[in-house]
Amino acid sequence: MARRIQVIGAHSADFVWRAGGAIAACTAAGGEAEVIALSYGERGESGELWKQEGQTVENVKEIRHGEAERAADHLGASLRCLDMGDYPLQVDGDRLLEIAEVIRAFAPDVLVTHTDTDPFNPDHPIAYGAVDRARGLAAGAGVRSAFATIRPPALFLFEPHQPELCNFTPTTFVDITAVFERKQAAMAEMQAQRYLQTYYAERAGHRANHARRASGDQDVRQAEAFQRVIPQVVSEL
Amino acid sequence: MARRIQVIGAHSADFVWRAGGAIAACTAAGGEAEVIALSYGERGESGELWKQEGQTVENVKEIRHGEAERAADHLGASLRCLDMGDYPLQVDGDRLLEIAEVIRAFAPDVLVTHTDTDPFNPDHPIAYGAVDRARGLAAGAGVRSAFATIRPPALFLFEPHQPELCNFTPTTFVDITAVFERKQAAMAEMQAQRYLQTYYAERAGHRANHARRASGDQDVRQAEAFQRVIPQVVSEL
Amino acid sequence: MARRIQVIGAHSADFVWRAGGAIAACTAAGGEAEVIALSYGERGESGELWKQEGQTVENVKEIRHGEAERAADHLGASLRCLDMGDYPLQVDGDRLLEIAEVIRAFAPDVLVTHTDTDPFNPDHPIAYGAVDRARGLAAGAGVRSAFATIRPPALFLFEPHQPELCNFTPTTFVDITAVFERKQAAMAEMQAQRYLQTYYAERAGHRANHARRASGDQDVRQAEAFQRVIPQVVSEL
Amino acid sequence: MARRIQVIGAHSADFVWRAGGAIAACTAAGGEAEVIALSYGERGESGELWKQEGQTVENVKEIRHGEAERAADHLGASLRCLDMGDYPLQVDGDRLLEIAEVIRAFAPDVLVTHTDTDPFNPDHPIAYGAVDRARGLAAGAGVRSAFATIRPPALFLFEPHQPELCNFTPTTFVDITAVFERKQAAMAEMQAQRYLQTYYAERAGHRANHARRASGDQDVRQAEAFQRVIPQVVSEL
Amino acid sequence: MARRIQVIGAHSADFVWRAGGAIAACTAAGGEAEVIALSYGERGESGELWKQEGQTVENVKEIRHGEAERAADHLGASLRCLDMGDYPLQVDGDRLLEIAEVIRAFAPDVLVTHTDTDPFNPDHPIAYGAVDRARGLAAGAGVRSAFATIRPPALFLFEPHQPELCNFTPTTFVDITAVFERKQAAMAEMQAQRYLQTYYAERAGHRANHARRASGDQDVRQAEAFQRVIPQVVSEL
Amino acid sequence: MARRIQVIGAHSADFVWRAGGAIAACTAAGGEAEVIALSYGERGESGELWKQEGQTVENVKEIRHGEAERAADHLGASLRCLDMGDYPLQVDGDRLLEIAEVIRAFAPDVLVTHTDTDPFNPDHPIAYGAVDRARGLAAGAGVRSAFATIRPPALFLFEPHQPELCNFTPTTFVDITAVFERKQAAMAEMQAQRYLQTYYAERAGHRANHARRASGDQDVRQAEAFQRVIPQVVSEL
Repeated sequence: MARRIQVIGAHSADFVWRAGGAIAACTAAGGEAEVIALSYGERGESGELWKQEGQTVENVKEIRHGEAERAADHLGASLRCLDMGDYPLQVDGDRLLEIAEVIRAFAPDVLVTHTDTDPFNPDHPIAYGAVDRARGLAAGAGVRSAFATIRPPALFLFEPHQPELCNFTPTTFVDITAVFERKQAAMAEMQAQRYLQTYYAERAGHRANHARRASGDQDVRQAEAFQRVIPQVVSEL
Repeated sequence: MARRIQVIGAHSADFVWRAGGAIAACTAAGGEAEVIALSYGERGESGELWKQEGQTVENVKEIRHGEAERAADHLGASLRCLDMGDYPLQVDGDRLLEIAEVIRAFAPDVLVTHTDTDPFNPDHPIAYGAVDRARGLAAGAGVRSAFATIRPPALFLFEPHQPELCNFTPTTFVDITAVFERKQAAMAEMQAQRYLQTYYAERAGHRANHARRASGDQDVRQAEAFQRVIPQVVSEL
Repeated sequence: MARRIQVIGAHSADFVWRAGGAIAACTAAGGEAEVIALSYGERGESGELWKQEGQTVENVKEIRHGEAERAADHLGASLRCLDMGDYPLQVDGDRLLEIAEVIRAFAPDVLVTHTDTDPFNPDHPIAYGAVDRARGLAAGAGVRSAFATIRPPALFLFEPHQPELCNFTPTTFVDITAVFERKQAAMAEMQAQRYLQTYYAERAGHRANHARRASGDQDVRQAEAFQRVIPQVVSEL
Repeated sequence: MARRIQVIGAHSADFVWRAGGAIAACTAAGGEAEVIALSYGERGESGELWKQEGQTVENVKEIRHGEAERAADHLGASLRCLDMGDYPLQVDGDRLLEIAEVIRAFAPDVLVTHTDTDPFNPDHPIAYGAVDRARGLAAGAGVRSAFATIRPPALFLFEPHQPELCNFTPTTFVDITAVFERKQAAMAEMQAQRYLQTYYAERAGHRANHARRASGDQDVRQAEAFQRVIPQVVSEL
Repeated sequence: MARRIQVIGAHSADFVWRAGGAIAACTAAGGEAEVIALSYGERGESGELWKQEGQTVENVKEIRHGEAERAADHLGASLRCLDMGDYPLQVDGDRLLEIAEVIRAFAPDVLVTHTDTDPFNPDHPIAYGAVDRARGLAAGAGVRSAFATIRPPALFLFEPHQPELCNFTPTTFVDITAVFERKQAAMAEMQAQRYLQTYYAERAGHRANHARRASGDQDVRQAEAFQRVIPQVVSEL
Repeated sequence: MARRIQVIGAHSADFVWRAGGAIAACTAAGGEAEVIALSYGERGESGELWKQEGQTVENVKEIRHGEAERAADHLGASLRCLDMGDYPLQVDGDRLLEIAEVIRAFAPDVLVTHTDTDPFNPDHPIAYGAVDRARGLAAGAGVRSAFATIRPPALFLFEPHQPELCNFTPTTFVDITAVFERKQAAMAEMQAQRYLQTYYAERAGHRANHARRASGDQDVRQAEAFQRVIPQVVSEL
């Protein structure tokens, strides 16, 4: 039962910190993963690069593309950037349909994106709104329609930087112990953000502690937290 | 991976309507199920029986015990009633420890009980509070302690009669199509409550419709809804 | 269609400030009103009386009883005090049944009490919890039972002193313009609390302003705010 | 006191399932009802029609118009479709003003629309947002303004398909027993959606059960659930 | 430690009623205050002016500008109106950047605006959304970026007209006793809205009562309520 | 303006992990701090000690007392344990009054305790409920009463182990950079819980990162998170 996971972030580095482990866990189990970056975060989230004199937006995008691609490589995922611009990210009707088309084309089992609130980032809630709505357009109303539809993917929100302020309540911890080295390798590609490498490595340890408390499984050493949005259908509790 | 499910209800019929299918799905898959009734619902929920002249509490309890036992039988579960009284159900310190001991003794993988709110039933929230706290006592703090502890069971809330007014948001639909006849047989034992047999049969159909919309799986014909309380630990999204 | 309204407060003055107008509106329309005070507020809410040297609890209770009775008189209501003590108000199993019996005996169409939260008063949430549960015991489960039951009364919460901090969202404004003089007369009986007389007179004006905005009815000059807890059943929207 | 009810749905069939009974109850009592469809649901919700080879959008719209008109007829309502397109429904500034104008022109006592959340439908929350804002534009700020305003209509949300996931808490059950045959006739016009006819007929029975529990009125056999958004102004609780 | 406060309202009078005291308290302490009006409220909130025959939008704007400027003067603040239009206020991408630029230019310590919900005003939530997002654009992601950023200002919501219905929970009461006469002078400039002058004067008294209860400080005679959105960083609790 | 802080925990080690920095910040600024432990956590939270053969409850309590006292010493606080028992902690009427008396006796400016929810600990919510209610009893209703009252202390909740699952939203970050060594010394006294020493040291770093993002103050290296419950009264925003 190899699965297909698609992770859509506002900026090209979001997937690494927030879902790198879950992506690697999927591909390690034989699944397929695609990362969609709505923008490169070229204006707002490329701090170190802008310290270089004479820096240009095009150059920043190119560097960010390379970093994200190498990080995705470590995780076994392919990467596409829709280059919609950042700070502010703006999604009009045409771009909404473009995102819907990207979801329809990949037909994921699992779709992952931002929370609906983030007081520290003006683009993340816009990304959530667009992905949530595009998912509905791709999956349709459960009846035949005037356009092709896909089986409705499970929808998860990945962990934001300040969870309690972003309306985030974890429902699911993914045990990433077995693939944690791959996440670390991916994080290491983000050379300008060394601080976050430490932060999210420690966070993986904390979430593992939470997961051990929730499950009693003492073997979880690193984990990532997610919030499931649509109910799960199971054959047994 | 046969599982152990324990369902704790305030009154002896609660488990049938709200979790009968999930119990049968567990036992059908080779798991073990135990139903705990905190009371027989002898005063407040035995309407038809009290229409008989000369009816006594002891007789009502006996009849209710028989019904519940036969229903549990259909589902493959064992039944225990702690006979703590109803309307009002009251759980003091000793009874709290008794419930904790019952959980510790069975050591379930999955524990199921009421929601924390119910404007239509004064006993249901009391049952929730007691079970939630007893679960914590049975599972301990995740370290060795002065008393025996068990692996922390998953905690689910079953569907109340008026879900939106009871603080209930489904996170999980259990496909009970394959065992629905067993749930119907169990419900049929509750002879005095014919109306509810129809109600919950139709409800199973509606929840299946919701499950089909959530998952795209068109084979779900009957389902039950549950709310997971503690995060799930998984190896893949 | 004369109605029966029962207002249950933690302390003997609560009904005046928070529901005096709604009580008077009921009796003015030919209805019957009963006020139940769980305590006299003799220890915690009788500030001025305790300034008198040699003051005793019994004397405070007597004075508070007189004030509350005269206030109830102005509103056309009868008054009973269950004298359960205040600061802290404590409601054990027997007292819970006593409150249920009081509700059953009066069989109100409308039952009114405190909110479930109040960071400024340790007795109000206890009163809410007891009344909510007692209402369920009095109304039963909608089937015949081992005890007498009444038609389930509508449940309203009256306005607390700091609404947003008490989990209070108004769903219903009662136009008390026609009976406002009676509420003022009732408030005037609470001689030691002149400040509150001004406060709640102004509040009545503000709630009327809110009511005018909500309904467009420009004739509302004074109003009280309430939160309905159980859905309303109507023949037309 | 005949009343005016206006129901605004994202797609042309929404009013039938979710508010057909309330519409019929209004017109049966001598009131006037208008249904506004923002779109025909021609792309996303016309499953069966798209099974016909050579089907066109224009033809689908025509068929949907006929069905909705006949359904509205059974309920005694008039129908207008603003034909704004579906999947996705998009409401820009001009369309917002058009919806405000439609509300202003009919000047309803009661306005009914979708919930603000719906994980199973990308158009419903858009419709809610537009209607909520348009209502404010039509009613104004309660003072004379540069444009004509109407008395602020009561605002209700009708029941979505998966209520707990759509932020829906019923505050009001409408007893539709007396007009249920008219709702059934209206539902029967939606020939391609036989499943929903059964679903919503059963749902009417369940909501009636809930209404009986809430009110004690044993005569309610079918009901619809609504959530009131703006507080109600009453002369008595 | 003189501070800089910036108050952004949808219409030109909002700042007076809701934050006039906090503005005066800031300037009285040597701080600097700027008021930004996104519109004049010329269409929807200028009731009395539109009673004059032959009234024009331009004339209304001019009068409103004068009133707001004189009110700001009393409070020691400067005023700018962005004149984006009202009923409906619409904020597209360019206007969003304009608001971000206004925030960046003033670089406030404290930014104050509307709540995210207001069932009685279609423009207030639009203003909130725009200011919240613009604040994020002005403050950036906490790293160097392609554009100039400012130190992230504290974000407060001022009190809406019907707080409980607007998702408003006060976290902060500002003692405006010492500057209340200046607020009254500012309010008096709004000649057409005499009712609101009384309303907000009384409200200041009520909020002071709440503040006395919260703090025990008996010297607070007038106060304003605010909701802090971003956590506060302090050196001691 | 030296302040008095009182921290009340269910078990004798809670204060160290969750509020050790805030305590040290208070005493470093010349304030006074008292720690109240409702129990020693002798049964449920003394894992390592119970590994020793022949261990007794009395011995565990003695060891835990010593650890807590030495930890309090490092932070400059005094320690009292009320020894009410753990797993389950039970607070009846007499114990409630005892806690109220302890608060009244110390008369804190700032009172700190657990959150109201904790799915991983059955004693924490009991402690919250008791402290919240006892605070109300100690502070009274803001009027003279039959018993001595104190100025109402600010109420804060400290950070639980799994914040998003415990209804915890930080409103306040305390910069503990200057006293972090003292917190580390205090944590080091808890010899049996080495894991938590690492966990909470890392957590302090993460909360500092959050605090830097919230305030722009780059000097915060370690922080603790708290949730303020009662509104703050300030002279300026």
